Amino acid sequence: MKKTVTFIAFIFLWTMNGQQLQSSSKDISVDFSLSNKGEPTYKVTYKGKEVIKPSKLGVSLKNGIALNKNFTIVDSGTSTFDEMWTPVLGEEASIRNHYNQMTFHLKQKESNKKLDIVFKVYDEGVAFRYEFPFGTKVEYFIVSEENTEFNLTGDHKTFWIPSDYDSQEYNYNETKLSEIDISKLNLENGIALKTIDTNFRVQSPLMMKSAEGLYLNIFEAAVTNYPVMHLDVDTKNFNLTSHLVPNAIGDKAYLRTPSTTPWRTIMVSEDARDIVSSKMILNLNEPSKIEDTSWIKPMKYVGIWWEMHVGISTWDYAGSQNAQNSLTQELLPSGKHGATTENTKRYIDFAAKHGFDGVLVEGWNVGWEDWFGNWKEDVFDFTTPYPDFDIEEVANYAKSKGVKMIMHHETSGSVGNYERHLDRAMDLMKKYEYPAVKTGYVGKIIPRGEYHDGQTMVNHFNFVARRMADNQLMVNSHESTRPTGYHRTYPNYIAAEAARGNEFNAWSNGNLPFHETVLPFTRLLGGPMDYTPGIFEIKMSSYDPSKTEQVHTTLAKQLALYVTMYSPLQMAADLPENYEKYLDAFQFIKDVPADWQTSKYLEAEPGDYLTVVRKDKNSESWFLGAITDENPRNTEIKLDFLSPNKKYKAIIYQDGKDAHWEKNPKSYNIKKETVTNKTKLKLNLAAGGGTAISFMPID
Amino acid sequence: MKKTVTFIAFIFLWTMNGQQLQSSSKDISVDFSLSNKGEPTYKVTYKGKEVIKPSKLGVSLKNGIALNKNFTIVDSGTSTFDEMWTPVLGEEASIRNHYNQMTFHLKQKESNKKLDIVFKVYDEGVAFRYEFPFGTKVEYFIVSEENTEFNLTGDHKTFWIPSDYDSQEYNYNETKLSEIDISKLNLENGIALKTIDTNFRVQSPLMMKSAEGLYLNIFEAAVTNYPVMHLDVDTKNFNLTSHLVPNAIGDKAYLRTPSTTPWRTIMVSEDARDIVSSKMILNLNEPSKIEDTSWIKPMKYVGIWWEMHVGISTWDYAGSQNAQNSLTQELLPSGKHGATTENTKRYIDFAAKHGFDGVLVEGWNVGWEDWFGNWKEDVFDFTTPYPDFDIEEVANYAKSKGVKMIMHHETSGSVGNYERHLDRAMDLMKKYEYPAVKTGYVGKIIPRGEYHDGQTMVNHFNFVARRMADNQLMVNSHESTRPTGYHRTYPNYIAAEAARGNEFNAWSNGNLPFHETVLPFTRLLGGPMDYTPGIFEIKMSSYDPSKTEQVHTTLAKQLALYVTMYSPLQMAADLPENYEKYLDAFQFIKDVPADWQTSKYLEAEPGDYLTVVRKDKNSESWFLGAITDENPRNTEIKLDFLSPNKKYKAIIYQDGKDAHWEKNPKSYNIKKETVTNKTKLKLNLAAGGGTAISFMPID
Repeated sequence: MKKTVTFIAFIFLWTMNGQQLQSSSKDISVDFSLSNKGEPTYKVTYKGKEVIKPSKLGVSLKNGIALNKNFTIVDSGTSTFDEMWTPVLGEEASIRNHYNQMTFHLKQKESNKKLDIVFKVYDEGVAFRYEFPFGTKVEYFIVSEENTEFNLTGDHKTFWIPSDYDSQEYNYNETKLSEIDISKLNLENGIALKTIDTNFRVQSPLMMKSAEGLYLNIFEAAVTNYPVMHLDVDTKNFNLTSHLVPNAIGDKAYLRTPSTTPWRTIMVSEDARDIVSSKMILNLNEPSKIEDTSWIKPMKYVGIWWEMHVGISTWDYAGSQNAQNSLTQELLPSGKHGATTENTKRYIDFAAKHGFDGVLVEGWNVGWEDWFGNWKEDVFDFTTPYPDFDIEEVANYAKSKGVKMIMHHETSGSVGNYERHLDRAMDLMKKYEYPAVKTGYVGKIIPRGEYHDGQTMVNHFNFVARRMADNQLMVNSHESTRPTGYHRTYPNYIAAEAARGNEFNAWSNGNLPFHETVLPFTRLLGGPMDYTPGIFEIKMSSYDPSKTEQVHTTLAKQLALYVTMYSPLQMAADLPENYEKYLDAFQFIKDVPADWQTSKYLEAEPGDYLTVVRKDKNSESWFLGAITDENPRNTEIKLDFLSPNKKYKAIIYQDGKDAHWEKNPKSYNIKKETVTNKTKLKLNLAAGGGTAISFMPID
Repeated sequence: MKKTVTFIAFIFLWTMNGQQLQSSSKDISVDFSLSNKGEPTYKVTYKGKEVIKPSKLGVSLKNGIALNKNFTIVDSGTSTFDEMWTPVLGEEASIRNHYNQMTFHLKQKESNKKLDIVFKVYDEGVAFRYEFPFGTKVEYFIVSEENTEFNLTGDHKTFWIPSDYDSQEYNYNETKLSEIDISKLNLENGIALKTIDTNFRVQSPLMMKSAEGLYLNIFEAAVTNYPVMHLDVDTKNFNLTSHLVPNAIGDKAYLRTPSTTPWRTIMVSEDARDIVSSKMILNLNEPSKIEDTSWIKPMKYVGIWWEMHVGISTWDYAGSQNAQNSLTQELLPSGKHGATTENTKRYIDFAAKHGFDGVLVEGWNVGWEDWFGNWKEDVFDFTTPYPDFDIEEVANYAKSKGVKMIMHHETSGSVGNYERHLDRAMDLMKKYEYPAVKTGYVGKIIPRGEYHDGQTMVNHFNFVARRMADNQLMVNSHESTRPTGYHRTYPNYIAAEAARGNEFNAWSNGNLPFHETVLPFTRLLGGPMDYTPGIFEIKMSSYDPSKTEQVHTTLAKQLALYVTMYSPLQMAADLPENYEKYLDAFQFIKDVPADWQTSKYLEAEPGDYLTVVRKDKNSESWFLGAITDENPRNTEIKLDFLSPNKKYKAIIYQDGKDAHWEKNPKSYNIKKETVTNKTKLKLNLAAGGGTAISFMPID
């Protein structure tokens, strides 16, 4: 690991009662100063042009002290940092963390309180955070609000989802800043639990584009022991202000000295690819705290899951999803229970035959009869299988086939109950050699009054990751807070859902065709998503002619998502019998790896398209994914990323000429070509379509 | 076990739109009827005289439905029940549960909601509860308040403590009902955390005495999955109304059908001994759910505890009780840490020498430097000893001496943190063969917004009891909700503090001399208390001449408490070196058992005096405890409880002639006499004094 910390002067310019810090590229600079009232203020410029106008900084405490004015700068300092580090799993085998830093040590006159503000400037953006230094004694304090402003320079195009303390599972809205208004949304969207308390607040990451074509992204990194930051929007003046998600009694964060807030990040570039490829969020997190990471591995998996979403089988043994079916409350088997020993063996056979690492089984444990929508505390015990699921037999069978079982822990939001059972639940996993767990948090949180995005829950999700790490277990959390790079620190936290996943297509109005062209600029900046792509039987009418739901995609696009949606955990979400019908297309899912040597974003425009190529970490093969929104797209790409003087067999999985996400989604064809790094390839993507390509070197 | 359930008619009398139920003694009756508005109403009479005037019943739900009017009686029924059952530990080797019961099945017109109200009448009182029956489907509902009235007949003398959602550690106030007013109390009483939100609300058990000399007690039994009931006081009309302790968001209880509330109890007698000896609260709880109870044993114990209260040593290694002593936050040993290996061995030696079962060690684990008063979440991990406490060496040493170690889990109110560590904490106990744990909950509860007396915490305390039972471990909870008989159902929940204990005498204004004459009529009705009696070095000035605190007692009274304060867990709380100074008096503590064949209350007047004799469960010996309040007391008792035709050696531990709790508390003398069941004994109790007697049969 190369590491350099240098104190430098040249990046550091005194201004009136403040200082300026530049990126090493010199394109981005941040100015910090105190106003004549002693208010901490910053602004950000890109190539000399303001992108964040002078914006105030501060934190309000519950004891009445507002750390936002009457400050003096006691001291300040700058440094630069440059290192390469090696993620356990990732889009890149090694990552450069290179930034310039300046720190301001502030003191407030009346209160005598100290506050440090630290800025880091990367080539793709600015990050800053508040630090509460240890003084002469430990001080405990309660944050009642954070007063961070992001004052924008115009009425940018914005990709936003509404502020909701309990869910991010929304379709993105593409509007101008001035048009943000939650009251105008159709909220009949399949989200069962919504906690929205104002119409002019959005979530981050917030992706924007200015009229001049500048891309801007506001987000946060390293959210630990702090609530998630949402953003209040002043739709007239284009100002954003931090809003922290409250706890049960309206407080925001309980902290002590010394401590810090998460990093607030502003990425900016005239090239959208700089944002989508940025590792800034990861770099702002602490290095791995797990010493031996040999047990952390990428996983491709299948599972008993989509069949419940499409209505073929049920999570619960009795088939009712609540206890209403029986006055006597007996468990009467419905005959439709998905997680049977027999059905699991079928998936294990399929996984073994096609080279998948794992099999997920949802609905294996008692509790599903009465789990949903009632704010019920004692739901699951995480250790008792249904009578038709023989966990020992399943575990032995999987082992004999060389397949790993993936545990499932649905909590229904009853988090105290999960924490009370966690050690015993992990003991069961270890006993039966499940290396990973998918967790779920569908429902109102217990402790009651807490929200999915509050400090309590942030701490819970991180706690589960740490406890799983103690036991060498990997985690994939669904309905959690969206990640902000904690998987750098705990690389066993391999994936999360925390956005609108593919499942919504099965039983709601679904995901807009442009959804997957937005996610890489938003949700994925924080960490891998278990999006569960790979749906080949796209229209739900194939299961029930009365159904009109569908995945808003072509079949080829589903393949491309394995490359465009980076995750070391990738599900082939459709049913084995559906894959058997399209084994030629399925070959791509079998071939595509989930861990990479390097990645190159060839084309990117949020909400429109994305083309990315990635090189397998363990071979010389490359894989391409290209997707478009609801519009067809024709493009030509150069294969100059391939190694020179080498021939590759390209297998091109593309939309059929008549393909269309709605009218003809399953039209695809597969072409094989021999290519080199001089080759140019024309890609023709249907409306809502995509292209996936594997490039295997020919020896 | 003899058990009789008979449907009977004679106890059951129709009245206008209602019915009356009598106790088998016929002294007590309860009338239930619906008002002309369909309001459920009851009244209670004792020997034909009203003791509870017509009082309304009802429960308000959060969805706006008030289950308190517009009811019709759909059906009703009566039964009688008579059985003997055997507690694992207790004041009696067997207990009779004998009551008449009537149940009303009500239906509300508009809402179509069902509500059952069940009455049980015992010879010493009435109990009733609400039941929410299972209809055609499971229904979830939220109780926003319970509207149970107890309309009293006059301005009774009342022993009360203020309603406080987080503490019952108050001195009792003895006033008329009309004089109840929390604003008039001196709250400089050593209680660090108080949550009082009105001046006219009290806690239960509420002990009263009418002008006519009738004793009345209002309490509750079997509080599970429900908050604690406090009582709003109408000081003009002498009406009490239930007030349930809220949760973080103001709700009271989350229930589903079928479920029940706790029992609301009204004990009444013209003889105070009927109340103090009542087993009604226990009888109203479910029988034991633990099949093998052989591991549940009474314990007398000593421990490293009082020395911290008196200031000789510290709980924490660094001696500061918070992290303020060190800018670097290093742990610098103070040299005053109590829980060292060496000191523990000294207590083990003392316990072994004097026949004590157990040794408690507080302050053995890291976390005490920064545990108190800051609403800190991650305080203790319950598994990491301080560097000067070698848990393995201690465990081995105790085992070699035939002494059991008692674990200590202070949570500081951070309950989520405790639950997250509980399984690992119990694993440590099992590894080192600790059979029991003392838990502590000093501080504001986390999950934040919850209170000690809310449904969440009631569930927590019961959960810990159940989990400890799963692991064959006994629990003694401090700063928990006051017990309501759950130790019948989980007999491993052997004791609790949950009232103002002896410790307050060490560092606050202390406990009034009459305190222990009130507790048997209040706190002890719900279950055993770990009061930690046995303080011989009564004045704190003996440790530090500048101190004025003292235990408000004579030395002899401290002995009597081992009999008057029933508990199967009894601490000899003073320091070994203090007991060595008074070995003759200490002999009583060594002799007195903690589990009994039978108990007889000879004299009782709440707030004034109590005289009780108990027969050892495992021998023919009897033990007497007599205590008085701040007034001296002379009395004569008949020893007719002793077996006829048998001689006993009576060792009488009594106050010296010049004894006085304040002026001369350590004056005592010991007399030995031979007595029979014909003997009458004069007892002379000093102001704040007591007498303890052992009666050993002479073969």
